[in-house]
Amino acid sequence: MSEVLAKKAAALDAADELAPHRDLFTLDEGVVYLDGNSLGALPRHVPARMQDVIAREWGQLRIRSWEESGWWTAPERIGDRIAPLVGAGPGTVVVGDSTSVNVFKALVAAVRMAGEGRDEILVDASTFPTDGYVAESAARMTDCQIRALSPAEIVAALGPRTAAVLVNHVDYRSGRLNDLPGMTAAIHAAGALAVWDLCHSAGALPVGLAAHDVDFAVGCTYKYLNGGPGSPAYLYVRADHQARFDTPLPGWNSHEDPFGMRPAYVPGDGATRGRVGTPDILSMLALESALDVWDGVPVEAVRAKSLALTDFFLECVEAYVPAGSVSSVTPAAHAERGSQVSLSCAGAGEVMRALIERGVVGDFRRPDVLRFGFTPLYVGFADAERAAAELAALLG
Amino acid sequence: MSEVLAKKAAALDAADELAPHRDLFTLDEGVVYLDGNSLGALPRHVPARMQDVIAREWGQLRIRSWEESGWWTAPERIGDRIAPLVGAGPGTVVVGDSTSVNVFKALVAAVRMAGEGRDEILVDASTFPTDGYVAESAARMTDCQIRALSPAEIVAALGPRTAAVLVNHVDYRSGRLNDLPGMTAAIHAAGALAVWDLCHSAGALPVGLAAHDVDFAVGCTYKYLNGGPGSPAYLYVRADHQARFDTPLPGWNSHEDPFGMRPAYVPGDGATRGRVGTPDILSMLALESALDVWDGVPVEAVRAKSLALTDFFLECVEAYVPAGSVSSVTPAAHAERGSQVSLSCAGAGEVMRALIERGVVGDFRRPDVLRFGFTPLYVGFADAERAAAELAALLG
Repeated sequence: MSEVLAKKAAALDAADELAPHRDLFTLDEGVVYLDGNSLGALPRHVPARMQDVIAREWGQLRIRSWEESGWWTAPERIGDRIAPLVGAGPGTVVVGDSTSVNVFKALVAAVRMAGEGRDEILVDASTFPTDGYVAESAARMTDCQIRALSPAEIVAALGPRTAAVLVNHVDYRSGRLNDLPGMTAAIHAAGALAVWDLCHSAGALPVGLAAHDVDFAVGCTYKYLNGGPGSPAYLYVRADHQARFDTPLPGWNSHEDPFGMRPAYVPGDGATRGRVGTPDILSMLALESALDVWDGVPVEAVRAKSLALTDFFLECVEAYVPAGSVSSVTPAAHAERGSQVSLSCAGAGEVMRALIERGVVGDFRRPDVLRFGFTPLYVGFADAERAAAELAALLG
Repeated sequence: MSEVLAKKAAALDAADELAPHRDLFTLDEGVVYLDGNSLGALPRHVPARMQDVIAREWGQLRIRSWEESGWWTAPERIGDRIAPLVGAGPGTVVVGDSTSVNVFKALVAAVRMAGEGRDEILVDASTFPTDGYVAESAARMTDCQIRALSPAEIVAALGPRTAAVLVNHVDYRSGRLNDLPGMTAAIHAAGALAVWDLCHSAGALPVGLAAHDVDFAVGCTYKYLNGGPGSPAYLYVRADHQARFDTPLPGWNSHEDPFGMRPAYVPGDGATRGRVGTPDILSMLALESALDVWDGVPVEAVRAKSLALTDFFLECVEAYVPAGSVSSVTPAAHAERGSQVSLSCAGAGEVMRALIERGVVGDFRRPDVLRFGFTPLYVGFADAERAAAELAALLG
């Protein structure tokens, strides 16, 4: 649409140190994939690894693989691969179950840790809804009350009854980045525990779980971490909370002696305590393999590119798209922006269908949001320019 | 060891209608795999299917696969594949999460359904331990008491305070088959609900969930169902209980309108209500593919062969193994026997290691049990004879 912006895109791509990472992924020529914040693209090397897992580890070694192929220790081992991406120390992240199940573990454990007289759970009202549903159940089963508030209202609502607070780091719909350091400090000042949902931030920006003393965190691995469809989620438990982590789901995998088959439950140490039942090994090892694309990639570089991409996309939208036809619901300030741009737009569902036909894949979130996710490992500036141009062509 | 028994094995194999099914699996020449009750062998066609799932459905279709490849509906669709194997009607089984997590869902829902004044959960004390640990947590979170009893004691212990009873259909250690029809009837007569764990029976013998009015059931899929390491478990909820099924894990996948992203939880209908978060698609689709080996196989034929195999193995052990060196802890009566033979044996851990070196793969369960699982789809009578002969050679 504009030679100036197209040239700018080319220059930005030429200077992008992460650009070579695109070749690590299976992508289609001619398609701009801006839905990696829903399902990350396939790293090229994963199919061969999974063929080996299935044909040799399962097919030939069978039961021996639990030890010989390291299946048994995969949840902690892969947790340690994710830990540096979210600023967590080794031994504090364990992989397994879904985000929803991990929200339940974390919230129940947080309430149990909060102590007497604290019977309120505050929940980010704009959260991905599963967090709210599960929090409601956690509250019901621990004799707590739930209060759903916008993130901006949470700090003022903290008080002596607050047991735990569940907040999304980046809002799935608007792309707003909440203030993890500030809110966590305020939650602690009120004597409560902070549970952060990292689904839309891990792999897109620095999280700093340990640096900011976050108590618990959960997240999925199939968005910016590219683990594959429904790949298992993870649970972070702060190191100094682990010995008191009192899980509502004490499955045998978390026992201190799982093969002792002892009738009484005695929890294991460390991250292991967050395990429950036998892990989905195929999904888990696909995730482990997918994490190889992060080797040598500092998350700070990803963040810098992410902000440059979303800035540039917004610049192109501003330049190309007829005034008034879309408006950004993603905050303009870098400190409040995740790695997506959400545009409200009349007829957004239809518009997204048409965009996808034109080879620009984002997604639609009710009622009126066009959501474009920018995954810095495989999306470039020319992609951002083309997405804006196709959107303008549709709305022009 | 004995020409007579070797000839008998050959005759039994020749007459075995299920024998051709062995070719559907990847097995090693020279190895007798009697650990399919821990991890089922790999069906030969699964690697090619999974290559397609990974390279095309994830790699090329990406996010579109949730609809176009049927990922979203997989939990219910695969549940309907498992249903006939356990005697359940369509729409009553849903696949997802681990057995431990499903025990939690089923027990909490059962207690909530049991009504006022019922505050006791009875648990099979010989159960696989995770069931007991999770039952303890379910009891704690629903203000119930737990009583751990041997299956033989359970019926006499039922009373007006009993809310729910959790029993293993086949005991993982001894291989004892518990009386599902009789115990379920007694539990109902006492006004309580029955939760059966089918891990060691599904795919090995007829279960008859609907015929016997079982309230809830759970089971894993990586043993006799050959779904792959840690493949997702399933939950059965009796059709007439579904509308009252009040889950402790109300994740967004179970919502009546999951993509509405509505702040209030409204459960969906039917088996869907047992879903929680985003399912592990790779593990789930490997399971779906693996279930193809059951096409046209009546579970009654599997049961007949299973009993013939375990009878014949016991006959060979009796004939070959020095008197007094092993004794069977698996009941002799067919009505009380699952699809495994457990032999107590001094130094069982060492003996099993040596047996595995000789190409007979069973497993060891503390303190002194040699466990041999007979999976009728791919184990034959000559395998049983050889296993007994190798054991005799070691103990002779």
